[in-house]
Amino acid sequence: MVKVGILGVGTVGQSVIKILRENADIIEARAGKKIVVTKGVVRDITKKRDVKIALSDNPYDVINDESIDIVVELMGGVEKPFELVKEAMQKGKSVVTANKALLAYHRYELQKIASSKKGLAFGYEASVAGGIPIIQSLKSGLSANHLESISGIMNGTCNYILTKMIHEGTDFDTALKEAQELGYAEADPTFDIGGLDAAHKLLILASIAYGIDAKPEDILIEGIENITSIDVDFAKKFGYTIKLLGIAKKKGETVELRVHPCMIDQNSMIAKIDGVMNGISAVGDMVGETLYYGPGAGGDATASAVIADIIDIARGNTSAMLGYNKPLESNLQLVNPKEICSKYYLRLLVSDEAGVLAKISETFAKYDVSIEMIMQQPSGSKMANLLVATHICKEESITKVMEELYENQNVLTKPSMIRID
Amino acid sequence: MVKVGILGVGTVGQSVIKILRENADIIEARAGKKIVVTKGVVRDITKKRDVKIALSDNPYDVINDESIDIVVELMGGVEKPFELVKEAMQKGKSVVTANKALLAYHRYELQKIASSKKGLAFGYEASVAGGIPIIQSLKSGLSANHLESISGIMNGTCNYILTKMIHEGTDFDTALKEAQELGYAEADPTFDIGGLDAAHKLLILASIAYGIDAKPEDILIEGIENITSIDVDFAKKFGYTIKLLGIAKKKGETVELRVHPCMIDQNSMIAKIDGVMNGISAVGDMVGETLYYGPGAGGDATASAVIADIIDIARGNTSAMLGYNKPLESNLQLVNPKEICSKYYLRLLVSDEAGVLAKISETFAKYDVSIEMIMQQPSGSKMANLLVATHICKEESITKVMEELYENQNVLTKPSMIRID
Repeated sequence: MVKVGILGVGTVGQSVIKILRENADIIEARAGKKIVVTKGVVRDITKKRDVKIALSDNPYDVINDESIDIVVELMGGVEKPFELVKEAMQKGKSVVTANKALLAYHRYELQKIASSKKGLAFGYEASVAGGIPIIQSLKSGLSANHLESISGIMNGTCNYILTKMIHEGTDFDTALKEAQELGYAEADPTFDIGGLDAAHKLLILASIAYGIDAKPEDILIEGIENITSIDVDFAKKFGYTIKLLGIAKKKGETVELRVHPCMIDQNSMIAKIDGVMNGISAVGDMVGETLYYGPGAGGDATASAVIADIIDIARGNTSAMLGYNKPLESNLQLVNPKEICSKYYLRLLVSDEAGVLAKISETFAKYDVSIEMIMQQPSGSKMANLLVATHICKEESITKVMEELYENQNVLTKPSMIRID
Repeated sequence: MVKVGILGVGTVGQSVIKILRENADIIEARAGKKIVVTKGVVRDITKKRDVKIALSDNPYDVINDESIDIVVELMGGVEKPFELVKEAMQKGKSVVTANKALLAYHRYELQKIASSKKGLAFGYEASVAGGIPIIQSLKSGLSANHLESISGIMNGTCNYILTKMIHEGTDFDTALKEAQELGYAEADPTFDIGGLDAAHKLLILASIAYGIDAKPEDILIEGIENITSIDVDFAKKFGYTIKLLGIAKKKGETVELRVHPCMIDQNSMIAKIDGVMNGISAVGDMVGETLYYGPGAGGDATASAVIADIIDIARGNTSAMLGYNKPLESNLQLVNPKEICSKYYLRLLVSDEAGVLAKISETFAKYDVSIEMIMQQPSGSKMANLLVATHICKEESITKVMEELYENQNVLTKPSMIRID
């Protein structure tokens, strides 16, 4: 029998307990052992819960319990769970977590500790894209490949909002409100909408694929807050859809890591992933493109991944946490966000006067940004939206163009930009 | 160091050798060990090959070689490789194969032998859907779930032909010829076109999901040979696309296993998988729907999966071949193909005379098959195509309807049928 203790018995933790009980037959057959949750730790012990396990409000009641084999960390946060899972591993317990923030900051330290203890495993399948087995697919399924890129939809909240905007013409605020009412977005949605949630997941995947170390603050992160129906209409007119993507791309000895909204070909597989679903494309040098699709959140879907890790540990599979024992592609350097190259779409609200277009074009020319197309749309009296698509240029150049345009007195609001893939 | 011997150095075998050499850096980092192919067995030793390994035409040169840890079987066939891999396992070697026919007939015997030897593994990721890690995803990623269904596109040849017919209006014969010219179809395409290749793969997946034993001859298998542009036009008009699907579906204590062309909602994810690509949807009771997409064939893509298995074995992961140690859902019974229920689309070429429709309708009524819609299209002089869509009925009933219709003198050719999902 494998005994499990859970730190944090919220939505996912309760699903873990429920599934281990309801699907006990098949889980025991697959794991080769009974798996039982014997203890749970909660912040507020007085709150009523229908979980039928021993509860405590002291995490050390799990960590110091010698009968517990696996500690499942579902409490959230960064430094506190980091301390606790380290102590659990010091005591010889394997760890399973769904905590992406913990991994975004401490994955290499955790890998070091996990690999120093024989027979000890650290599972985190649930930390990226919920129920989709993407971690395992990168660690094992594609292990013969150098990965050329990993990109995809890693945040269901943003995908729900964008899908509503694109397919139903809903505006951003209404779509966000609907997402909140349906439980797809938090009361404070900043973490999802701003791209940070997707960035945490991207950093985890990039570590498995490239062994590259980076923190959220090292990479380009932009959210979907500024997307309007004008952008959506432009995208549709030119055969694009708009998705918030996490992108890890290898170019020579460098790796680009970035999270931002992106106009992508509406016929690509990623473009077809709608609603709250997640989907991640991984391109290997030998296998070509593979894609993994499924629910990226939700108690039962996330618990499905947590339990998959527990079963793997019960089976005795304790391969290296990040999928490698020796350093992986160790010469790879993180690309400075300023050096990233892309095509860009810009939206400018300008005063509709003679000569404005010429002045604006001058700014693009000054920074060597070549324009592919300009569209002008009247917007109220004596104002127009200028929609500009550029050829490929550096992030640094487009930033300078946008700064200079914002200083132009004919440009009435801060310019808005979406990258085109 | 892990030493590998290969039985069958054809396209996939040569890719395995190439990738193990070209990607040696990353493979060693991930496996924790060097992996080297030391010997290959071929049928015709005189044929020139650019593989730079020792070759022999005697499989026992690999099987009896005590220095070899893993035998990779890529020779094809059923009984001969079965004998050889059994002997290899008896000698304590782990086995990796891409041979779906071998597994379609002998997977349970192989699992029994593999599980009787401690530390010995049997890998077969490459046997289903080429480079897509679907075996691993079912064995581990979704291991907490009872699987409600597995369905998808498991044969790239058929998907290529159907995609050409649907998106470009190509007729079946032209599309098949193109597939052959591009190397996507064999000179004798029966095995792919007739659905047997997909059936082999479906049986393997069904064993992992349900532990159910069946041979190809026990299940419903139909190919795409009889699909015409009339069927394609009908499908498009009513929002369907046509795909050859392998379907495993649990209903209560029974499992349906079937391979056949199917009209499916053109907005479903599976409908969006075009060309030679494969895509498999797996629905778990806890996780919901997940989908896996990628190249289902090709030397490098298949070799990518073969090497993933080798790396897993090098890492010491030797979990049960089919993913379970105790019997899995052992009460499940295979549904008799006659008992399967579906909606059906029928195409009949009839003589265009008064009273024909009444007579035909009578036949449907006689076997209690309720008609949802009939379309009549003139076809040459005094002939018409009747296109009939039914409500849900039993396979047995529709078969009787078709038999009786074929005996009707107004029905000029054998009726053609496609199931509607």
